[in-house]
Amino acid sequence: MDWAGRIRTMAGEARAASQMLARLPTQRRAEALQYAARAIRSDAAAILAANEADVARAADAGLTDAMLDRLRIDAVRIEGIAAACEAVAGLDDPLGAVIDACERPNGLNLTRVRVPIGVIGIVYESRPNVTVDAAALCVMSGNGAILRGGSEAIETNRALYHAFVEGLGAAGVSPHAVRFIDDTDRAAVGAMLAAAGDIDLIVPRGGKGLVARVQADARVPVLAHLDGICHSFVHGSADPDMAVRVVVNAKMRRTGICGATETLLIDRAFPQPERLLKALADAGCELRGDAETQAIEPRAVAASGEDWDTEYLDAILSVAFVDDLDAAIAHIAAHSSGHTDAIVAEDPAVAERFLAEVDSAIVMWNASTQFADGGEFGLGAEIGIATGRLHARGPVALEGLTTYKWVVRGQGQTRP
Amino acid sequence: MDWAGRIRTMAGEARAASQMLARLPTQRRAEALQYAARAIRSDAAAILAANEADVARAADAGLTDAMLDRLRIDAVRIEGIAAACEAVAGLDDPLGAVIDACERPNGLNLTRVRVPIGVIGIVYESRPNVTVDAAALCVMSGNGAILRGGSEAIETNRALYHAFVEGLGAAGVSPHAVRFIDDTDRAAVGAMLAAAGDIDLIVPRGGKGLVARVQADARVPVLAHLDGICHSFVHGSADPDMAVRVVVNAKMRRTGICGATETLLIDRAFPQPERLLKALADAGCELRGDAETQAIEPRAVAASGEDWDTEYLDAILSVAFVDDLDAAIAHIAAHSSGHTDAIVAEDPAVAERFLAEVDSAIVMWNASTQFADGGEFGLGAEIGIATGRLHARGPVALEGLTTYKWVVRGQGQTRP
Repeated sequence: MDWAGRIRTMAGEARAASQMLARLPTQRRAEALQYAARAIRSDAAAILAANEADVARAADAGLTDAMLDRLRIDAVRIEGIAAACEAVAGLDDPLGAVIDACERPNGLNLTRVRVPIGVIGIVYESRPNVTVDAAALCVMSGNGAILRGGSEAIETNRALYHAFVEGLGAAGVSPHAVRFIDDTDRAAVGAMLAAAGDIDLIVPRGGKGLVARVQADARVPVLAHLDGICHSFVHGSADPDMAVRVVVNAKMRRTGICGATETLLIDRAFPQPERLLKALADAGCELRGDAETQAIEPRAVAASGEDWDTEYLDAILSVAFVDDLDAAIAHIAAHSSGHTDAIVAEDPAVAERFLAEVDSAIVMWNASTQFADGGEFGLGAEIGIATGRLHARGPVALEGLTTYKWVVRGQGQTRP
Repeated sequence: MDWAGRIRTMAGEARAASQMLARLPTQRRAEALQYAARAIRSDAAAILAANEADVARAADAGLTDAMLDRLRIDAVRIEGIAAACEAVAGLDDPLGAVIDACERPNGLNLTRVRVPIGVIGIVYESRPNVTVDAAALCVMSGNGAILRGGSEAIETNRALYHAFVEGLGAAGVSPHAVRFIDDTDRAAVGAMLAAAGDIDLIVPRGGKGLVARVQADARVPVLAHLDGICHSFVHGSADPDMAVRVVVNAKMRRTGICGATETLLIDRAFPQPERLLKALADAGCELRGDAETQAIEPRAVAASGEDWDTEYLDAILSVAFVDDLDAAIAHIAAHSSGHTDAIVAEDPAVAERFLAEVDSAIVMWNASTQFADGGEFGLGAEIGIATGRLHARGPVALEGLTTYKWVVRGQGQTRP
């Protein structure tokens, strides 16, 4: 299979179709997603049957229960997928928005206008909802999409994709705007990552292994985060009640998400460290700490050097005591993955220094790091969370899937 | 020489110094540039002596007159370099600007705030002014910089660099914010291009060979344009006087800049093609055209297939007749480098379709493509012009050297 040629063809078709899509008024793109949601609902039986086949094959292949759980969908989840598609239809349209405008002394009128990026490649693992979530965000933002899901979910993804593009077609939008690689050959992913000039951006969605491979191999820009090594720092001025509430939530609400706190830094001036550590241990959290931590909370074990750079995604927390704000900022600079870091403090000058000096995509004051999410930020949906420093940082939704162009209107000006 | 290790060290120092720089108020960063400009003026004799040594060595090595001209500086050019540095000090400060803000229903307060990208690597060829231009833009935007200039200009660059950082030091700013690779070993460039995580963005400034090498080898994001294959399309509705004036300027004002028009597309409905082609030929432009062009203007020669994809940077223009707006847009989609494309037309509906459908960084109506320049766009200076689709497009100045972070302020919120 000539994957390079095939990807080039698919990308060219997706680009042409998406350029027509981008010129449609907001309402028409929204309508296309409403039709797609409807098609997903009416294809539910076929989608469920396809999913049963995937799950049976995966069970035979010995996938873990956690993997089977990510793969499995039921009627409720199909309704959720359709509803998410409709939710994207209701988001603010970024296309055509004027970022800024000015008139030059020579009379030239300049505006910067939001336009789609072009063709987005999505490489994802076992969660079939990504097929529709990513396709919907690309359609609404006028981008073409090339979807490549995990091999274990191929029947489910195919069924969801067919329903989605059936909906686009019914709404009079070219189904070519969204393409699906209906093949489990891993060489297809390599060709996508190499397709600079054909694919404008790759978004990997899945575990760290996938993201690391994509970041290492891609010649196309990648929007992703590899790790979510998030910190919560409890300053000496923190309200102890709030500190317990926020930190237990930041760690324990859901331990498997990228915004979960992985390291707790406690100011030596904080008056109630025993209470904080006890609350975490009582909530079922394994604590890995320095000598002070172990002295205060007998259930704590010793942290190794690696712990400070580990994303547990589990009910485990590394804990260190620090002398002051500067020491906390230095620890975060050395160990944070640049995703989300938070301070709990009553002193506003301290908090503002933390917010200014911690160089992460998201910085928080008196809030749980678990809020690091496009939905919680009011973006309505997210294509991913980015820890890179260019283009878009933190949760990325419709606006992050656009770029801009300069539009210059003159009256015959020539440059002297 | 362990270039990887050395670049890592320099980048780490530049990052630390630039983080302090970024926290200084606008006035302090501006003042540092004013001091740098003063130091350049007072070091003029040493800079000129260094430049004489470079020019003598380059002449011995047999560099062309054009290359020697790019390398040579005199007292007037030193004053220009110092004045450009001061001009950057007067630009609007992007740091701390709030892109947007909202309060969520749960009371969380969210803002997106502009912050520096981090460490910028500048790889440039023989023009010594880039040393100061790039350093000034990085300092004003709170970024660290690692400068690597062409070997033929190393003495001049070193002298300019020393004056610049002497100025920073006199203003109380760490000179480590801007580093200079005082070595002509080409392996240093390879190490910069590989320094993902240490250098956040590479900006190549120079000829196509340099840009192509950087784009091919870099593992760090690159901000650049490879080609400026710019088009001017004269629509049937164009005012003939304006068409002649704008197109002759777009091609002939300066033929060596990236915004110079390289291909002229003429609508068959345009009433005065003879006059337009005659004006170009009379201005000394070689015309390479299709059969119609040659029939109308006897001095025109036949274009080959390659001409449509060639950036001449010379007094040469490829010319094609097209049936209508759609054919012009299709030609541009097939051959434009995505830099700048313009239409001359009186019909606003036609012009607006061109502006919407041509997918280039800059699109113009009734203006010369030679305006494609940061200074002309009011940016005050530019680090480069980008034809990539992510982060920043077209002329890039201070704002393009920033990213943003999400700042979340709460009152103890936990996620349900």
